[in-house]
Amino acid sequence: MLSKLKDLLIGPALPTQSLGHKQLNKIRALAAFSPDALASIAYANQEIYLGLVVAGSLGLSYAWPIGLGITSLLVIVALSYFQTIHGYPSGGGSYIVARTNLGTLPGLLAAALNAAVSLTAGVAALASAFPDLWPHRVAIALVLLLVITLVNLRGLQEAGTFMAVPVYIFLGTYFSMLVYGLIRLAIEGPTPLAVVAPPAIQPLTLFLILHTFSTGSTALTGVEAISNGVPAFQPPQAKNAGRTLMVMAVLMGLLFAGSIGLTQFLGVVAGPQETILSALARRLFDNGALYYVIQFATLGILTVAANTSFAGFPRLAAILARDGFLPRQFSSLGDRLAFTNGILLLGFFTAVLIVLFGGDTHALIPLFAIGAFLAFTLSQAGMVVHWWKERGQHWGLKSSINGIGALATLTTLVVVIISKFMEGAWVTILLIPLIVLGFRRIFAHYIRVREELSLKGLPPSLKPVETTRVVIPISGIHRGMVGAVNFARSISENVTAVFVELEPGEGEKARVEWEAWWPDVPMVVVPSPYRSLVGPLLQFLDETDAQHNDGQLAAVVLPEFIPGKWWQTLLHNQTAWLIKAALLYRRRKPGRERVVIDVPFHLRL
Amino acid sequence: MLSKLKDLLIGPALPTQSLGHKQLNKIRALAAFSPDALASIAYANQEIYLGLVVAGSLGLSYAWPIGLGITSLLVIVALSYFQTIHGYPSGGGSYIVARTNLGTLPGLLAAALNAAVSLTAGVAALASAFPDLWPHRVAIALVLLLVITLVNLRGLQEAGTFMAVPVYIFLGTYFSMLVYGLIRLAIEGPTPLAVVAPPAIQPLTLFLILHTFSTGSTALTGVEAISNGVPAFQPPQAKNAGRTLMVMAVLMGLLFAGSIGLTQFLGVVAGPQETILSALARRLFDNGALYYVIQFATLGILTVAANTSFAGFPRLAAILARDGFLPRQFSSLGDRLAFTNGILLLGFFTAVLIVLFGGDTHALIPLFAIGAFLAFTLSQAGMVVHWWKERGQHWGLKSSINGIGALATLTTLVVVIISKFMEGAWVTILLIPLIVLGFRRIFAHYIRVREELSLKGLPPSLKPVETTRVVIPISGIHRGMVGAVNFARSISENVTAVFVELEPGEGEKARVEWEAWWPDVPMVVVPSPYRSLVGPLLQFLDETDAQHNDGQLAAVVLPEFIPGKWWQTLLHNQTAWLIKAALLYRRRKPGRERVVIDVPFHLRL
Repeated sequence: MLSKLKDLLIGPALPTQSLGHKQLNKIRALAAFSPDALASIAYANQEIYLGLVVAGSLGLSYAWPIGLGITSLLVIVALSYFQTIHGYPSGGGSYIVARTNLGTLPGLLAAALNAAVSLTAGVAALASAFPDLWPHRVAIALVLLLVITLVNLRGLQEAGTFMAVPVYIFLGTYFSMLVYGLIRLAIEGPTPLAVVAPPAIQPLTLFLILHTFSTGSTALTGVEAISNGVPAFQPPQAKNAGRTLMVMAVLMGLLFAGSIGLTQFLGVVAGPQETILSALARRLFDNGALYYVIQFATLGILTVAANTSFAGFPRLAAILARDGFLPRQFSSLGDRLAFTNGILLLGFFTAVLIVLFGGDTHALIPLFAIGAFLAFTLSQAGMVVHWWKERGQHWGLKSSINGIGALATLTTLVVVIISKFMEGAWVTILLIPLIVLGFRRIFAHYIRVREELSLKGLPPSLKPVETTRVVIPISGIHRGMVGAVNFARSISENVTAVFVELEPGEGEKARVEWEAWWPDVPMVVVPSPYRSLVGPLLQFLDETDAQHNDGQLAAVVLPEFIPGKWWQTLLHNQTAWLIKAALLYRRRKPGRERVVIDVPFHLRL
Repeated sequence: MLSKLKDLLIGPALPTQSLGHKQLNKIRALAAFSPDALASIAYANQEIYLGLVVAGSLGLSYAWPIGLGITSLLVIVALSYFQTIHGYPSGGGSYIVARTNLGTLPGLLAAALNAAVSLTAGVAALASAFPDLWPHRVAIALVLLLVITLVNLRGLQEAGTFMAVPVYIFLGTYFSMLVYGLIRLAIEGPTPLAVVAPPAIQPLTLFLILHTFSTGSTALTGVEAISNGVPAFQPPQAKNAGRTLMVMAVLMGLLFAGSIGLTQFLGVVAGPQETILSALARRLFDNGALYYVIQFATLGILTVAANTSFAGFPRLAAILARDGFLPRQFSSLGDRLAFTNGILLLGFFTAVLIVLFGGDTHALIPLFAIGAFLAFTLSQAGMVVHWWKERGQHWGLKSSINGIGALATLTTLVVVIISKFMEGAWVTILLIPLIVLGFRRIFAHYIRVREELSLKGLPPSLKPVETTRVVIPISGIHRGMVGAVNFARSISENVTAVFVELEPGEGEKARVEWEAWWPDVPMVVVPSPYRSLVGPLLQFLDETDAQHNDGQLAAVVLPEFIPGKWWQTLLHNQTAWLIKAALLYRRRKPGRERVVIDVPFHLRL
């Protein structure tokens, strides 16, 4: 039944050989990898507005210059990733470039945070249009998250198809709005901000402008997604990916600069429970049908933006897992040829973030910005080193582009850390070394396992076969014992039964019955004054090994009694489980492990 | 560390032979088994007051007659249980008498509910004195519950010692209060109710009086505890238990009739967030220190009243478990010679009730009353049958006492069911058949297990030993395989290794390595196009069994790889677990179970 539900939600298993078919053409790839980048204009606009509005109309007049500055930064970063794609066509952008786990970890963190930021921003767009939904933002975000997780578990190609529609609706409606806005602006002329802006409550300082610039730079997030996902493109992969990146960057720049400019020159100001993009649309369309279309388009792009993370995070995690920095399970393809474990982990982590931060985008931004800018900085710095080492054609120009990019994103990073330290940035600062430590321990573990599992140094002809001593712990004389005793006698001449006596006198009764059925198998009664089963049994095993003194450990044959229905297991003492756990998992010296032979007995009903 | 914490909270394990020392003298037994009975005057008083106050002063004037009626009922019920103790000195009162699971189930339910009712009533007494605590009643009740559970897990004798103090404080203070109240009444003369009572909001009907009588009869609950706990008394058990019961019944009767009478004739009326006993004490002591002493004494007796359940419930559950109506685990003595599982179950169930009913005693009473009166009725009806069958000395008188008792408690039961059906009685009505059904299924399961485990019909000389075929699933060629292959070769001539190939080409690589190390053990590669491990392995096993066609099943040797620290298990695919679960627990025909041989390999770090 569970497996039918799984088939319904996620689809039947796909064979490995159909893997080649799951690659994306450019139109689908743009839909799968760009929504984060495109949609980031929503929360970036919001951050710029919230950052400047405290300084009144004077503050808001800096929106357009800041927007242009961020757009320039975008050009640099996009060029850098374009170079990365061609430099490292196998994918894994920032990771491959930085070549340390430090380089990819911020990317992982940013991907995880991107899902939460995009979903909450999308829900904020919806709640701007329908204020009744404002108190239910957390619940709505969680439902959307569930849908995205399921879609991704079905596999990437379906995700691409599903996501393409909202992406192109968003592009169509937003560009129409921008063009219409420009026409209105040309006819009506600009509205002076001084008329509409609320009074300043803080002075306009350089720090305030820098800080706004840095949080507004979250508009750049998502640019790296394509460089991490090159293997998902149809061949020629690098060329297709590079072109898609350039198209995406141009679209992002136009949307971002256009919307910021319109907001400023039309003198748009937002209410307390409304986003600034919602206020812009309302200013242009006056609560008409077109306003709602814009809000749903925003919700749509932000919902699928979270999908960028679901395309990127599991891929990064798989690369890390293959290199031994994350548990192996993240590198294995699930039934639907998607990285199931990475998708599930991301879904869980995003849900926790949404609940923890009460569904508030603005509260999540500091954590998010640090992850994103750290990844940018390390990746671009890595590229500078790369060009310098290679010293190919135009290496000076290329490394200058990356160098300027690295410096710019580093500045942004430092400003965010300083200005937002108390508001949550410390969480990221604390998390990063902890996670790095975790990566290192995992890596060390896998290395050590490989060493311990190595057959090097073992004599080429392995030691000859010896006969085995066998011990059977018995709880009583019943049919469940028959298979166990038979099996024990089939593998060894030396079989002993052990009865742990919980109540005085039981042992002798059991011995009489035992000897009637198996007179040739000796039975030992071990008293247990504290009514514990496992302790006396382990002691007996150690003692009998010591007595035999043949260097061998007795194997234990466990008769296990398995009822027909799950609830019936509650009706039996799970002694077989307890004994197995003690025998298999308690620390022992290597080479002194005890073999446990499970002989199940299935009840008919 | 966990085991140290357990030692600190509960104490070290006790050997079985010290069991005899854990029996109680009469003083301790009265403290251990009477608090429920004594303390029930608190909520019974409250129920009578709440039942009558809606009919104004006319209603309240019926309190004293109803109290006397309930006291008469108490005399009958106490006599009945006195006879039960001497008729069945082995304990398990109502259960042994009714001799069906119907008879003891209501007792179990009532015991569980008693803990919740007593705790919430105790907290109400506290909150009457300190109104600030009123909103925190649930939390306070849960803390008290935790303390009682721990005390009981330490073992019965400690519990008796711990509980004796509040019981005797309660008796001392309450009797002093009653005597002082009688003196005041004699000097001041009665206060007419008409002066103080709130106006009637309902007419005084016969139904209202009957209903008040029936919920007020919860004063009788707890009388049966001693008859269930006879084995805990020092010998001569029946005689000691009988005397303790009679002392207890006299104390109960005096306290109950006395407090009801004083309340009525002193014209005491309670405020909205106060119990009627608190109002009585306040009337007599005017918020002085003595008032607070009375409230703490009430809290104390009610807290330890919950302990009656912790003495009774696990004992009843153990009797039922021994007879096969509950899981066996309830009949086994824990480290401290207490019925640990029963205590833990009761603690959990009580916590759920407290939270579910928001810590309100009045809301819990209907559920409680039904369980209690059903137990009384069935037990007394059973005694009638018993005397009639025996027809010994005075059998006519004895069965009349029990008959009148049964009729009276049956009437009470019917009235509660009718008047409180919508207010929660339906829950009990629904639960009882469901639990009975559960008992029957458990009983049927154990009977069937006994049949299936019987050795009857097996040939006396068991079939001769056959040699075994062995299959080893391998994940790669490493040191973890060495022990498994050696063990397999030590028990069988016929060993096959199986490699499930998740990625095409892996199999051939593995074969080359394998043949270098174990050229004499054949290796088979099984392709897995859907990347599943378990499915292809099971299929291979079935196929190889069919090919050999010797009536035998191949045993499976599983090399299991066990890391040194728990978190490291997350770093490895738990394939050994999955394979074991599939091999051991999937339904198979009896006699066709497959043996699983676990060869652990412990990593050093």
